[in-house]
Amino acid sequence: MKIIGLMSGTSVDGIDAVIVDIQNGVEDHDAVRVNVLQFATYPYPDGVRERILEISAPGAGSVEKICHLNAYLGELFAQAAIRIAREAGVELASIDAIGSHGQTIQHLPQPQDESGILVRSTLQIGEPSIIAERTGVTTVADFRPRDMAAGGQGAPLAPYGHYLLFRHPTRTRIVTNIGGISNLTYLPAGATPDQVIAFDTGPGNMLIDGLMREISGGTRVYDENGDDAAQGTCDADLLRSLMTHPYFTSKPPKSTGREEFGAAYLRQIHKEAGSCGINNADLLRTLTEYTAESIVYSFKTFLPNMRDMLETQTIDLLFCGGGVRNQTLMRAVQQRVQPLSIASVEQVGVSSDALEAIVFALFARETLAGRPANLPNVTGSAHPVILGKIIPGRSFRSLGGVSQT
Amino acid sequence: MKIIGLMSGTSVDGIDAVIVDIQNGVEDHDAVRVNVLQFATYPYPDGVRERILEISAPGAGSVEKICHLNAYLGELFAQAAIRIAREAGVELASIDAIGSHGQTIQHLPQPQDESGILVRSTLQIGEPSIIAERTGVTTVADFRPRDMAAGGQGAPLAPYGHYLLFRHPTRTRIVTNIGGISNLTYLPAGATPDQVIAFDTGPGNMLIDGLMREISGGTRVYDENGDDAAQGTCDADLLRSLMTHPYFTSKPPKSTGREEFGAAYLRQIHKEAGSCGINNADLLRTLTEYTAESIVYSFKTFLPNMRDMLETQTIDLLFCGGGVRNQTLMRAVQQRVQPLSIASVEQVGVSSDALEAIVFALFARETLAGRPANLPNVTGSAHPVILGKIIPGRSFRSLGGVSQT
Repeated sequence: MKIIGLMSGTSVDGIDAVIVDIQNGVEDHDAVRVNVLQFATYPYPDGVRERILEISAPGAGSVEKICHLNAYLGELFAQAAIRIAREAGVELASIDAIGSHGQTIQHLPQPQDESGILVRSTLQIGEPSIIAERTGVTTVADFRPRDMAAGGQGAPLAPYGHYLLFRHPTRTRIVTNIGGISNLTYLPAGATPDQVIAFDTGPGNMLIDGLMREISGGTRVYDENGDDAAQGTCDADLLRSLMTHPYFTSKPPKSTGREEFGAAYLRQIHKEAGSCGINNADLLRTLTEYTAESIVYSFKTFLPNMRDMLETQTIDLLFCGGGVRNQTLMRAVQQRVQPLSIASVEQVGVSSDALEAIVFALFARETLAGRPANLPNVTGSAHPVILGKIIPGRSFRSLGGVSQT
Repeated sequence: MKIIGLMSGTSVDGIDAVIVDIQNGVEDHDAVRVNVLQFATYPYPDGVRERILEISAPGAGSVEKICHLNAYLGELFAQAAIRIAREAGVELASIDAIGSHGQTIQHLPQPQDESGILVRSTLQIGEPSIIAERTGVTTVADFRPRDMAAGGQGAPLAPYGHYLLFRHPTRTRIVTNIGGISNLTYLPAGATPDQVIAFDTGPGNMLIDGLMREISGGTRVYDENGDDAAQGTCDADLLRSLMTHPYFTSKPPKSTGREEFGAAYLRQIHKEAGSCGINNADLLRTLTEYTAESIVYSFKTFLPNMRDMLETQTIDLLFCGGGVRNQTLMRAVQQRVQPLSIASVEQVGVSSDALEAIVFALFARETLAGRPANLPNVTGSAHPVILGKIIPGRSFRSLGGVSQT
């Protein structure tokens, strides 16, 4: 099946668009095989990012702006789909489906009581009726509300995508995505969906990027290749102190964010480092080692048989996300899991940059096949549910169970 | 097929819920036969109407309130579906589908230019993922955006429902819905969808209700049975003057609303009536006759062969909506179409009160069967499109064209 995946994350940088050819593995328990025909990130037009952030802010937005931007982003997502197909040289008519995550403008997983009804809600915009109409392709969108309706947090959804892509009949795998926050998906050998474990390990690039921004006065926003950190020396005392953060010992499923590992936390670290006379290069290296240490701590603390599997090298540690490009960080992880060799998801044939968009292409396929794509252990939902809404394209035929006319 | 239809109109009174058994007519060109198993209007809980109106107002709303109310109304729509099934004594598991219109909180059909993209938008809330999850029934919702994506106004949608329900192989029919505004659907004998004509004829109950509210100081909001109007006498001069309103001569497709026939217009009529010394009872009767006159004027002016068909009695005039209960109004219409006898839609076997909810039950069926349900001549769309979004229920099976796994 040829499917387009569309995604814009909370950083609101633009629309990730991927077109993939998906094939089943040879055996039932094999991972699906995904061939990326084309991937691109199309930035939002000038001013659109600001308008999205404006209507997303608490207490902000207005009904007309939200109504209008929902349709406008629908047009932009449709253009992204048309463009990625053209760049891949694929006719829209030969595409089986589009999976569109949309743009989250609000996510309220904490229940609000309405006379005894516990209401939890989420709002993604980018009207999928427009995507289906402009492309003629059956579109599946709006994946989070159904998991929340079933009692889940509506997030994280990616772990089921990792399950489809990376599970292995005989090898246990951990997929670690190092974004601002780092999260992992644990896939035991021959895993069934209910055996998947996924949670946030703690900081990803957030502290490193924050410190770089500070040191450079805002001219540098990340440590390219980890070159700056490579110049410094890790301060073992500070590292030990940082690892006492209570998040690390709290049990999964768990998630974290800027509230715990953002700017305020970084200021506090800065103060502690200053009082010990640690210079910027050494601090950067220490934060890099800290990030690696907290990831590996999660492996060893919360995942079964990890020490054995590391020693016997019967586990694959696969990494994705922007952190993969930080070689100092990746070396710091590597040292902590010796003698095992770590790898990027690219090394098992999946594009790291395109991964999120690929996940929503896969989700479209799951929904159209009538298969659930949430993991109750991971999102907290009461049971597995088929995610999303289906908007018929030109090749849409009647639904089996309900088509008797 | 057993289908539930859910609808809440712009008056935001509550949720109309209907459960129907739908069967095809004997011949292909016959109307569908709808057996209403149960119908009810469930009022919104205290304060909810006010909150909906608050977030619908121009410039009002906030992203959290809209996000939250979308989910909360989803819960209320789900409860309405569960309750109507229970009251009908029908197991949810035996229901084939739910069609939910949702609650419109914004409708912006006038294009807004975004760097050359003409964006038109509409926003209905009442999260259908929650309806599908709570009921387990495949739900089709959000019918308007796709017509707008195809260039239409997203309204009116009901005429296609009238086409399904009332078309007749050998008799021409006009279905006139007298709500606040009055609208008609013209169905020539043996009509195909592209032969349907539909438009707003002008005032429905709006002027009569507005005057009643004024006369009674707000204690009465409509003229029950038309009893008050029956006491008055029509002022022929005022009636003639009112009929010069430019809306009546403008050509269909056309639509109108409170802007043209609301409170401001009523104040102006009041002034004119006062200067002629017309008392309240006579004014009420005159407005009732005016409403009837403007409806029949539309028949005779814009629909082909109308005078012939009225004389030869080869047309059925069917009425629905609240205005049907105003006997003075119905008599005033009747007099103007002599010797033909007018009828209520009830007389051809369709519940007048449940009609709007029935339409959305029918639309769910059309979408699941892969059939378009918009009328390009009526909404202005470029072509017919399959409306709505499909949210899988428990009996959902994979989609034919895209299920090869």
